Amino acid sequence: MGRPASIIVDWGTSSLRAMLVSETGETLATRETAGGGIQFVKDGAFEEALLSAAGDWFSAHGPLPVLASGMITSRNGWIEVPYVDAPAGVAELAAGTKTLTLSNGAVITFLPGMRDPAARPFPDVMRGEETQIVGFGLDRDRTLVLPGTHSKWARIKGGRIDGFQTYATGEVFALLTRHSFIAKAQEPAPGAEPHWDAFDRGAEFAASEEASADAFLSAIFSARTGILDGRLKPEDILDYVSGLVIGSEFRQARAAGWFRSGDAIGIVGNNALNIRYGRIAPMFGLAIEAGPDNAAKRGIMQIAAEAAGR
Amino acid sequence: MGRPASIIVDWGTSSLRAMLVSETGETLATRETAGGGIQFVKDGAFEEALLSAAGDWFSAHGPLPVLASGMITSRNGWIEVPYVDAPAGVAELAAGTKTLTLSNGAVITFLPGMRDPAARPFPDVMRGEETQIVGFGLDRDRTLVLPGTHSKWARIKGGRIDGFQTYATGEVFALLTRHSFIAKAQEPAPGAEPHWDAFDRGAEFAASEEASADAFLSAIFSARTGILDGRLKPEDILDYVSGLVIGSEFRQARAAGWFRSGDAIGIVGNNALNIRYGRIAPMFGLAIEAGPDNAAKRGIMQIAAEAAGR
Repeated sequence: MGRPASIIVDWGTSSLRAMLVSETGETLATRETAGGGIQFVKDGAFEEALLSAAGDWFSAHGPLPVLASGMITSRNGWIEVPYVDAPAGVAELAAGTKTLTLSNGAVITFLPGMRDPAARPFPDVMRGEETQIVGFGLDRDRTLVLPGTHSKWARIKGGRIDGFQTYATGEVFALLTRHSFIAKAQEPAPGAEPHWDAFDRGAEFAASEEASADAFLSAIFSARTGILDGRLKPEDILDYVSGLVIGSEFRQARAAGWFRSGDAIGIVGNNALNIRYGRIAPMFGLAIEAGPDNAAKRGIMQIAAEAAGR
Repeated sequence: MGRPASIIVDWGTSSLRAMLVSETGETLATRETAGGGIQFVKDGAFEEALLSAAGDWFSAHGPLPVLASGMITSRNGWIEVPYVDAPAGVAELAAGTKTLTLSNGAVITFLPGMRDPAARPFPDVMRGEETQIVGFGLDRDRTLVLPGTHSKWARIKGGRIDGFQTYATGEVFALLTRHSFIAKAQEPAPGAEPHWDAFDRGAEFAASEEASADAFLSAIFSARTGILDGRLKPEDILDYVSGLVIGSEFRQARAAGWFRSGDAIGIVGNNALNIRYGRIAPMFGLAIEAGPDNAAKRGIMQIAAEAAGR
C-alpha cells in the first residue's frame, strides 16, 4: 500500500463521504457520515464538520491536501465555486478550482461544477458528474450517459466536455411509482431480482417504431391500462415503469441528437442503475464501451493535479 | 321551467353529483355530496347512498328515471358495465348500457365507458369523457381534446368516436409541482390571475423548433435551471411548468398523429384548464371550434334516449 497523500471528499446535501488516497490513487480508507451533509452544518461550521469526519487522518498523517466536490461548492456550501462553461476539459476545470487553507495548515481544493450555456431553454448544470466524465476518459470523441436521479448525457469532443443535458428520469420514476395514481407499485422484496420481463416490455415499447411511444405523457398511462387489461400484474409495475422511463430517456436523447443507431456510448458508473441502462442500449442499436472503475476519484485527482501544477 | 323528467348522476370515486333535469334538458336543481363517492359506500349500499342524496326528488316527483355514469359503473361500483370498444357512436354506447330497477320502482340506467383496442402498448380506456364527446357533437370528422388530470385526445369519424388516447398531463403537473425537487412551486394567492408570461414561456418552448423540446424528461428540468440561472422567479414556476407540460402534451399529440398545423380542433368542457389549452392551441397552428355548454349532460341524455328507444 502507498502512503496517504490526499483526502477526497464527496460532500453532498445529505451526506459526506471521505476517502484517504495514496499518491497513485489507491483508496486506503473510506468513511461516510450520514449526518454530515451540508444541510446539517450549522452557522457555516464546515471546517469543524470536516475535522469531525476526518480529523484523525490529519492527526495520523499530517495536513494532507483535501479535494472536495459536490454541493459543498454550491451557494449553500462552504464557498461557492462558479460553474465552468462547456466546452471544458481538465485545464479549464482546474482553472476553476478555489482553495482555502485550514487552521491546521492543510489546503482544501474545491472543484467547480459545469454549465452548458448552449442548452435550451436555459443553461444546464451539473456538479460532480464532470469529475466522473473526466475520469472515464476525454481521449476520444464520443457520447457518455451517467445514469442517476438526474441523469446526464454528455458529448466528448477534442479532449473536452463539449456539452451535456440533464434528464430527470430517476426522479420521474420515483414520482410515478410513489405518488401517482397511474402506477400502483408494489415494493419489491429486499434483494429480489428485478422482474426483467416486465422491464423489457416497458423498454421495448419505448424503443419501438410506434409513433405513440413519442408521447411520453401518454405512454406512462400504460402502467394503468396494462393492469386494467390484465396484461400487467401489480408486481410487474415497478420494473415495467423503470423500463418505460429509462427507455423513453434513450428515445428522447436520440431525438435530441445525442446518438444514432450504430453508435458506441459509454455508461459511466457501476451501480445497479447502470445494469438497466446497459440492458436498454442494444434496443436502440447502441454498443457499450467499458470505462474504468472509480471514475470520479480518477477525475478529481486529474483535475487537482493539473490545478496544483499551474 | 319544464317538469322534472330524469335524474342525472355523475358518481365518481370521491363525490356524487346529481342533477334534476327536465324533458328538454333544463337543469332544475343540482346537488353535490362530497362524502358520497363510491369509496365511501360500505357493503354495496349504493341504493341507500343514492336515496340519501336524491330521495326527496323521488318523494316530490315520483320514481324518475336515473342516468348514471362515472366510476359507479366500474369494478368497484354498483354494477360493472363493460367498456364499449371504439369505434363507437350513440347506438353502440346505448347498446352497452345496463339497467336496474330500484325498490321504489325507478329505473336506473348505467352508461358504459369506452375502450380503444387499437391503442399501444395496451388498450386505452375512459369512463365519462365519452358522454362529453357525444354531447359536443359527432356530426363532423375532427379531433377533440378533453383537458383534465388524465386528458384525452379523441378522433370523431363517420359519426362515431373512432379512437382516443390518454395523456396524464394534469397528474404529472401535480407530481412535479408538489412532490419533486425540480420545481419548487409557490402556491398562488387564492383567486390570483395566472402568471401568463411564465405560462407562455413554458408553452412556447414546447412549441418551438428546438429538437430538445422533444426530450420531455429533460425539458422539465428547465424549471430548475431557469431558477438557477435567474431567468425564472419562484413565483413563476407553477405557471411555467403548466405551460411546459400542456405544451408538451400538444407536441406529443402532434407526434402521435392527432393533429397537424392548420387543423381546427374542439376543446371540450369549459373550466379554467380549457383556457390554458385554448391559449396554447394557436402556438401549434390550431384553430379552435366552439362546442355547446354542458356537453356531458347532452351526451348522457342522447345515449339514454337511444337506449330507451331500442
